[in-house]
This record gives sequence, structure tokens and C-alpha cells, in this order.
Amino acid sequence: MKLYDAPWAPSPRRVRIFLAEKGVVIDREHVDLRDGEHLRDAYLRINPRGAVPALELDDGEVLCESAAICRYIEALYPEPSLFGADPLAIGRIESWTRRIEGDGYAAAVYAFRNRSPAFVDRGLPGNWPPVAQIPELAARGMVMWDGFVSALDERLADRTWIAGGGYSFADITALVTIDFAKSAAKLSVPERAKHILRWHAAATARPSAAA
Amino acid sequence: MKLYDAPWAPSPRRVRIFLAEKGVVIDREHVDLRDGEHLRDAYLRINPRGAVPALELDDGEVLCESAAICRYIEALYPEPSLFGADPLAIGRIESWTRRIEGDGYAAAVYAFRNRSPAFVDRGLPGNWPPVAQIPELAARGMVMWDGFVSALDERLADRTWIAGGGYSFADITALVTIDFAKSAAKLSVPERAKHILRWHAAATARPSAAA
Repeated sequence: MKLYDAPWAPSPRRVRIFLAEKGVVIDREHVDLRDGEHLRDAYLRINPRGAVPALELDDGEVLCESAAICRYIEALYPEPSLFGADPLAIGRIESWTRRIEGDGYAAAVYAFRNRSPAFVDRGLPGNWPPVAQIPELAARGMVMWDGFVSALDERLADRTWIAGGGYSFADITALVTIDFAKSAAKLSVPERAKHILRWHAAATARPSAAA
Repeated sequence: MKLYDAPWAPSPRRVRIFLAEKGVVIDREHVDLRDGEHLRDAYLRINPRGAVPALELDDGEVLCESAAICRYIEALYPEPSLFGADPLAIGRIESWTRRIEGDGYAAAVYAFRNRSPAFVDRGLPGNWPPVAQIPELAARGMVMWDGFVSALDERLADRTWIAGGGYSFADITALVTIDFAKSAAKLSVPERAKHILRWHAAATARPSAAA
């Protein structure tokens, strides 16, 4: 199988960290997002959605969506479990993953996509008809980001990792979200969120963070 | 355990259909969304996010997010599998679930929340500070909805169910999305999308659809 990857985008990074935590190596092909390669015919024949990552299987089928690719990998290589090994861990990891995505990651995408001249008429990521930017979404994203930071900091006050057990898909999702928000959307974790900052240092110190 | 539920909202319905497909019965308590019960102290002590569904476990821990609740139930009651029983099914179901949520369900929420007088300063669902409505999101939602309908119709042209195997969480997600979009956001499936319409009739005919 082959992973269509891109070096600075958050969703491919989520898959790369996941693979590194598993110790799984997959062939990768870079798609040049800055050059618009993901929106040209050759790549759209692989993934009509015009998004990375995409995982091409040996029979040609293509799996899209980073969470789906990670779940496929988890099913092939169950150890170490990153989606949870018992019902409660599974529920907690999914609950926090969804919350991180819905509040934190969405906030960063709102801010990133809706005010930069680079994305005029491309308010949605991927292969869509022209979609106007909505600058008000950047303001909405700030509210969401503040709520995300407060909730995650409280969660981490008495836990090493987000879901409560070992390092999991929820931590990977939060790490990718926080780094993307800072670099692409100028949304950062304030000094007062000391539990997140401690957690972030620990997550960043794992070799997988550099994947 | 106890499920905090609401009769007309899409996310609780997703869990109810899931439980019905599993044949699992859980105590339920209704939260009156129209009366704002989900945003009052008694419920916020259970789920500070002010959202339904929420699953209260016997030790008092509360799991939020409908997908997380369903995954917890799947882990407790694996049969029939609704998230997939082999790696490829798992990947396909998650990929389509994410796509349905990100394009179709998000479109419906955008349209529902951002133009109705009922949601002034409540542009985000749940317990947030005041968040202004953004009417332009309704227009963006129309573009997303059209893309969702086209992609899903193409997907269903040669399949009974969305992920390709049996009825799955992806089908439940699409059924809830389409019914919610029609009733709450006036986004409907056009006559030309005949494969979706055939699928929708089959999904609606399952006893679980009435849960």
C-alpha cells in the first residue's frame, strides 16, 4: 500500500505519528499542496476529494480520511493499541478525539481558511466549487479555541495523557491540532494552561512527533 | 447506565438507532431541548458541554459524543458489528462516516443554526459563550450539501449499503443526517439522486429507524 502524504499539513501528520507509534513503515508519495498538486487531475484520479492523506491499497482501492486510515492500520497492527483495548478506553479516546476535532481543530481550520489571501474562494479544504471565505468564522474560531484550551487543560490537571490510560489517538489528534493552530492560524496555548504545556512537552519528546 | 436523550435531535437518534440494531436496551432520560433544559445547571452538572446524548455509567462517569457512545456499546456488545469486523470494512465505514458528517451533517447544522431567530447568538450547539450567527454559512452549507448528495448517490449506484457490506454506522449516520437536514434545515435529496432515495427507503423500512 502507499500513503499520499504532505509534509506540513496536519491530517497527514496525524497518520505519520500514528504509524511511528505503531512502528509500521508504508511507502509514501508526497503531494505538493503549495503547488496545488492535490487539485490537479493526476491526483484527483486517486482521490477525487483533493485531500491528503489518502491510502492506496494494493488492489487500487483508496481509503480517505486520516481517522479511517488510522483505524485500518490499527486493525492490521493492533499493538500498541492507540484506539483503546477495552470498552471504557475505547469510549474515552473517541469522545476526546471528537471533542478535540470539533472544537480545537475546527477552530484552527476556520481561522486558517477564512482570512488568508491564499484561500480566496477556497473557504473549504479540498476539491469544491468556489466557496467564499467567511472572515466571521475566524472570530468564531477564537471562541471555540478558548473553550477547547480550558477544557483540555482541566482534563490534563491530573492525567499524563488525555484519555487517562497510555498515549492514544486522542493525544495524537491534540498534538497535531495544537501545532497546526499555532503555525497556521496563530492560535496558541496560553501560559496559564500549564497542564497542556506540560503534556505538550511530553508528547513532543516522543520520537513519533518528528514523523 | 443511563442515556440522556432527546426526541427530535439527530445525535441522540443516532445512538437510539444503533442500540435498536444491536437489540440493546438502556434506561433513558429525556432532556427538553426546546425548553433549554440542556443549558441549565442540573444538566450541565452531568454534561458541562450542554449537549445530548450523554451516557452516564454506573460509577457516575459520563461519556459524551454520539460516536463515542456507539463505539463503547459496540465494544460491550460486538454483534452485529456496525463499525466493521475486518480491517477493510473498518476503514470503509469510518471513511464514509467522516465524509457524511463533514460534508452532509455539517451542512445541515450550518443551515439550521445560522439563520433561525431561535438561535440568535447561539451559532454553536451546546454550552458556549454567545456566538453570533453567520448567515453566509447557510450558503456554504448548500454547496456542501450538493457535493454530499452527488458523492453519496454515486457511491450507492452499485451498493445496497454505503460501506459495501451490511448495514453499518455509516448508514445510520447518513439516515440521521438526511432526515435532520430535511426537517430542520430544508435541505433535501433531489429526485435525481435515485440511488439515495432507494437506499433511504430501505434504511427507513428497518425497525431501528423508528427508535
